[in-house]
Amino acid sequence: MAMVVQKYGGTSVGNIDRIRNVARRVARCHDEGSQVVVVLSAMSGETNRLVALANEMCELPSEREYDVLVATGEQVTVALLAMCLQSMGYKAKSYLGWQFPIQTDTAHSRARIMDIPDDKVRKDLEEGTIVVVAGFQGVDHGGNVTTLGRGGSDTSAVAVAAALKADVCEIYTDVDGVYTTDPRIVPNATKIEKISYEEMLEMASLGAKVLQIRSVEFAKKYGVVVHVRSSFDDITGTLVMKEDDEMETVLVSGVTYNRDEAKISVKGVPDQPGAAAKLFTPLSEANITVDMIIQNASDGGVTDMTFTVPHADFKKAMELVQKTADAIGAREVAGDETIAKVSIVGLGMRSHSGVASKMFQALSQEGINIQMIATSEIKVSCVVDAKYTELAVRVLHDAFGLAGDKVSAE
Amino acid sequence: MAMVVQKYGGTSVGNIDRIRNVARRVARCHDEGSQVVVVLSAMSGETNRLVALANEMCELPSEREYDVLVATGEQVTVALLAMCLQSMGYKAKSYLGWQFPIQTDTAHSRARIMDIPDDKVRKDLEEGTIVVVAGFQGVDHGGNVTTLGRGGSDTSAVAVAAALKADVCEIYTDVDGVYTTDPRIVPNATKIEKISYEEMLEMASLGAKVLQIRSVEFAKKYGVVVHVRSSFDDITGTLVMKEDDEMETVLVSGVTYNRDEAKISVKGVPDQPGAAAKLFTPLSEANITVDMIIQNASDGGVTDMTFTVPHADFKKAMELVQKTADAIGAREVAGDETIAKVSIVGLGMRSHSGVASKMFQALSQEGINIQMIATSEIKVSCVVDAKYTELAVRVLHDAFGLAGDKVSAE
Repeated sequence: MAMVVQKYGGTSVGNIDRIRNVARRVARCHDEGSQVVVVLSAMSGETNRLVALANEMCELPSEREYDVLVATGEQVTVALLAMCLQSMGYKAKSYLGWQFPIQTDTAHSRARIMDIPDDKVRKDLEEGTIVVVAGFQGVDHGGNVTTLGRGGSDTSAVAVAAALKADVCEIYTDVDGVYTTDPRIVPNATKIEKISYEEMLEMASLGAKVLQIRSVEFAKKYGVVVHVRSSFDDITGTLVMKEDDEMETVLVSGVTYNRDEAKISVKGVPDQPGAAAKLFTPLSEANITVDMIIQNASDGGVTDMTFTVPHADFKKAMELVQKTADAIGAREVAGDETIAKVSIVGLGMRSHSGVASKMFQALSQEGINIQMIATSEIKVSCVVDAKYTELAVRVLHDAFGLAGDKVSAE
Repeated sequence: MAMVVQKYGGTSVGNIDRIRNVARRVARCHDEGSQVVVVLSAMSGETNRLVALANEMCELPSEREYDVLVATGEQVTVALLAMCLQSMGYKAKSYLGWQFPIQTDTAHSRARIMDIPDDKVRKDLEEGTIVVVAGFQGVDHGGNVTTLGRGGSDTSAVAVAAALKADVCEIYTDVDGVYTTDPRIVPNATKIEKISYEEMLEMASLGAKVLQIRSVEFAKKYGVVVHVRSSFDDITGTLVMKEDDEMETVLVSGVTYNRDEAKISVKGVPDQPGAAAKLFTPLSEANITVDMIIQNASDGGVTDMTFTVPHADFKKAMELVQKTADAIGAREVAGDETIAKVSIVGLGMRSHSGVASKMFQALSQEGINIQMIATSEIKVSCVVDAKYTELAVRVLHDAFGLAGDKVSAE
């Protein structure tokens, strides 16, 4: 008998009618002969409402109590779905984090799942009960409520699927899969049928927000097949799974972009050991994440360093960098908030050369200047002027033949 | 070191500012050197909101899931209060029903408390931590969330006080104590300084809604001193406690009234064994609670029976009774929805005669006809026409010398 874990996000359980809709979908899966475990998020907006309450209460809410508070969001939806399924004549039972239990470490509001004993739930499933699990929440060894951080319900679902060795973990969302790029920018973007964990991780970290990164890492670690699909129709979505031979033949799977970063250049840095450490230590101490880092070849004893930071941290980063630059005798600090990072991702790059140069050519043909370049085994990223974002994405999507036939190209 | 349990109702924690107010009150009690346990209800309106969600979801919500749903209300307030106390520099920790644990039977939505192991909480208290407990909720032996029924937070508080052998259980509400009668009807009603459990039980069951009946039963069983007081000022309220000699000297402690009942008379019932059983069995099977029952002396082989049922069940009761009346050959069934029950309650009645007749005289002097009479050891109740409710209450309050001097009599 197949076992299916289905996860529904906040939009899919946003009101009573939508929860009824989820119940019908869950029931159908059960009717088709599968054992079904459902993992739910809070109703859309509810977590924000609870967080607002906490922030109104005090400036820095206790992390333990914050978790107790926000965990109520999922508690509401699992109870409602379980009662709906029962009213439809199905056996159903809700499980809160501490009841399953989803055992985590003690890192409140960003807890990591340690263990998921599955005997209680397995017994329910064998008796034909539909199990409805509160996503996002767990319990630590001291019996305290923990939460996994924003988007944690995806991780809950994949972890539960791993623990139960489910055949598939279906992640229902408001889009019907992972696309070759953002369809709002490229109308003929195509849905990807299947994609490897590695590519999905790159896509996710580059800004495609369909799946939470940690859930993909979890799926990769335990080999859980994830099916990303829409809760509003029955169309097959995208399978995220172990790479296979077929995937290797695709040079580029997707084009992504990210406008959430800003660029800082430090020019004329005396080329001495320790200069980089002096620049980046204050940033890391201020919890500012530095993404791309480029150091130009030394030229006459001085070098230029350029890197990107999140937009939100730009001002603070500039202050810290200016201070260090003065201290180490650098010539100039320049910032640029109007940049975008466009990237291509694909397993095929590993075995095929020329992918990066094809990318550079395509951009240059449209007169788009490349300011920074970074590469990994299955990814090439270029920083360009933000005004070229859409153009760059369309050019690359076209250049690597990702366009589908569903919608004619612009 | 004194140990105080403080319970705050929904109005007292109705918004962030009021929770801050509660935090200050709790903190002051802690500053004065007491170990403090706080028991909270949900924000006023929140439980109704959750119940409405359940009713919108399905007609007869699963009791188990209903409890999971409504238990979130108290989870929100305990987290908010604990984080507020922490932000004020106090050690504080929230406890949900399953964390304390408040162990109950499995009767969802009306569970009874079975046991409250107190070692974890006692340890916290000894370390100076303020313990904040979610009222209304518990956990059964199977690890399922249970709730105690409406007003259950009072019971939680008294039960926790009993388990911890606290010195006092303070019930904070929006009135400043138990009054000799409803001050909306009798402006010079006086606050009762102390009242016995037995009297409080009679007052509560007769319609004075300050304390939940089960909490008083619990307090009586374990000898918990309950202090009913207002969360909006510092005035001493009413102590509910074991009776003492002083209480015995008071003939009548309070006058109560209840307009939630209706009267049904069955006339000309053949006076045969089993007639009463035939009348009342269908009512009890339909879960209709019959309150007062009067059977007149048999007169020529037929008798009259009169009884009261809740207003809400009146129509159904009339149908059932009419059916039985026809079957047993009674002459007539008459209903009256415009009645009120006025009652006097007092320990002193046990040792003093003439209290009932004084009541009847007082009513008759105002021309108020008494339709039914029922008595217990410490209570006399009369059913009168509903239009006389206020007049009857004022007359009795006056007759037994309960008026205070705070407000001049009307």
